[in-house]
Amino acid sequence: MERTCFTYHIEREPFANWQDDLVNNAAKLDQVLAAIGPADDRSMAEARERQARLTKPAGSLGTLEDLSVRLAGLAGACPPPMPEPAAVAVFSGDHGVCARGVTPWPTEVTVQMIANFLAGGAVVNAFARQLGANVTVVDVGVAVDLDPAPGLLIRKVRAGTADLAAGPAMTRDEALAAMAVGFEVADLLVADGAGVLVTGDMGIGNTTPSAALIAAFAGVEAPTAVGRGGGADDAMLVRKIAVVEAAVARHRAAADPVAVLAGLGGLEHAAIAGYVLRAAALRVPVILDGVIAVSSALVAQALAADAVTAMIAGHRSVEPGATIALTKLGLTPLVDLGLRLGEGTGALLAVPLVATAVRALREVATFDGAGVSER
Amino acid sequence: MERTCFTYHIEREPFANWQDDLVNNAAKLDQVLAAIGPADDRSMAEARERQARLTKPAGSLGTLEDLSVRLAGLAGACPPPMPEPAAVAVFSGDHGVCARGVTPWPTEVTVQMIANFLAGGAVVNAFARQLGANVTVVDVGVAVDLDPAPGLLIRKVRAGTADLAAGPAMTRDEALAAMAVGFEVADLLVADGAGVLVTGDMGIGNTTPSAALIAAFAGVEAPTAVGRGGGADDAMLVRKIAVVEAAVARHRAAADPVAVLAGLGGLEHAAIAGYVLRAAALRVPVILDGVIAVSSALVAQALAADAVTAMIAGHRSVEPGATIALTKLGLTPLVDLGLRLGEGTGALLAVPLVATAVRALREVATFDGAGVSER
Repeated sequence: MERTCFTYHIEREPFANWQDDLVNNAAKLDQVLAAIGPADDRSMAEARERQARLTKPAGSLGTLEDLSVRLAGLAGACPPPMPEPAAVAVFSGDHGVCARGVTPWPTEVTVQMIANFLAGGAVVNAFARQLGANVTVVDVGVAVDLDPAPGLLIRKVRAGTADLAAGPAMTRDEALAAMAVGFEVADLLVADGAGVLVTGDMGIGNTTPSAALIAAFAGVEAPTAVGRGGGADDAMLVRKIAVVEAAVARHRAAADPVAVLAGLGGLEHAAIAGYVLRAAALRVPVILDGVIAVSSALVAQALAADAVTAMIAGHRSVEPGATIALTKLGLTPLVDLGLRLGEGTGALLAVPLVATAVRALREVATFDGAGVSER
Repeated sequence: MERTCFTYHIEREPFANWQDDLVNNAAKLDQVLAAIGPADDRSMAEARERQARLTKPAGSLGTLEDLSVRLAGLAGACPPPMPEPAAVAVFSGDHGVCARGVTPWPTEVTVQMIANFLAGGAVVNAFARQLGANVTVVDVGVAVDLDPAPGLLIRKVRAGTADLAAGPAMTRDEALAAMAVGFEVADLLVADGAGVLVTGDMGIGNTTPSAALIAAFAGVEAPTAVGRGGGADDAMLVRKIAVVEAAVARHRAAADPVAVLAGLGGLEHAAIAGYVLRAAALRVPVILDGVIAVSSALVAQALAADAVTAMIAGHRSVEPGATIALTKLGLTPLVDLGLRLGEGTGALLAVPLVATAVRALREVATFDGAGVSER
């Protein structure tokens, strides 16, 4: 019963130095934002009407009916295309804030886990194999240089962020460059045939910038947005809250979402924000994973409210910030099983749920067609 | 990305008249109950220990870790076998209680939906195609005679139940015969290669007997267990509650679970109870669908408390009785998306979640093996 994964090796040359491309990156963002539009009301109305004629009590598929309607609106077609195959990009970066003692994990675990992903040994790989989904690891900001490898896209914008407790995590230009990496990866995966994109992440320390982004964009106090991430103890948690509180205070007033992202985020957050925006521009659904993804999605939402049309909340992470961000995005998660791993794992669990929602709308017979009496 | 369904046609001759087999059916139940044992503690301990060594923060897969441990305990092996492929049996029957005006759907819809299942046009078919799962329709008590067809197993015990508002829905012998159909179907599907069984049902009016079984086995008052099923209006709901209240009052004191089942249940409930018990005896996991499945599972639990070891709650139906039954079973559902369709649809949504839980335990690298530093 194993599905065969489609083969996908990144053969393209590494990206030119991001510094050569500053004007271009700002222009790319403008282009992507300009391409994002609202859901198509007519396709949504058609989908609602079709759902009511399928051989089942009206409304009996619950949330999956609403999801199929949303996807019709995104595609501008009823029924929408099957959201298959799935492809997950694991955007990876390191974090200067780790120097503050906010995580129990040594920072070299970022690189060690990347090797694990490339060897197929991590949870994201096991989950992706279950679904026939492709896994691409993207180095957008890992602290050390990585050797080229199949399945690894080297697009390092800088070798880890600066300490966000001491000042901006990155420059605005670096944030734009990392967003452009996200645009490029979405383009590559869709060009390669992906029907649905999945967000993934790896970066020891990255729940701290996530909490900071959530506090800033959702306008909540730091303690409500900060969680234990990969296992912070009580002392770490206290430090983490203090770091987030101070950093957010410096950026709360900023009107420019990219400036907030640069001040508080990680390079993987910037790339995920770009990936999500580009998916919305391409009108391809993108399934959000946990707290890193939803915090990045808040940046995308702040830049283009209609980008939410393309977003599907894959799951509810146990990180408290995740629920705050989901509320701000107005999204209800499909899976709620107490996961807090990241990598894209929670989002991958939602892939078959999204596919079944669309498949029902596409394939189920109508009362008329099947000769079934209505109530 | 379509999985190929494995081909499965029922070629065996129709079952002999159940009346020839009365002693045999009682003996079969005894045999099945005797074969059900507790979870294997040693395999569960091994699974817990293995989960702690996998390259992820301990506990970060939430409920899926617990599920993998339970399945190791069921299999008596760590890791347990992959729960694939899935097979769903749609046990179908009619209900005399429909004469009381408890449902807005005409009873002929049972047969019309069976034709829809056999043509591949229902939601259960679309969901099963998504997963490469096989669908077998079992006539255990449809009111009219059905023509033989591929994918249909004719095991009619009687042509619909009697009105449970007026007296017992069936005799004890009929209940045993319908349970034996469940044993047989579980055997057939497992012999055919199924690694996980899924419960399905079709029967206009069958949320009324479900509510009655739940009220009787969970010891709750009728109004808390009764819901709107396929769309009962307020007047129907009042009648439904009155019917359940009166019927349960007649059976609450019964010590014999089979007698309660015969008094209140449908033929599909009896068959599902048998199917679940036989799965437990075979130590094959069985994913429960909605309120019909969980009410039937209460019968199984009452007969053999250890049968719960084999049960996985696929989803939480919006029918209020479903949550009461899940609590009594001590099971937490994997999917909670507001479904209320039946057919096996909610349980099918859980199939990939169950598979990923086991796959992670089987395939993910350990910290030692992958050279990843521990915290």
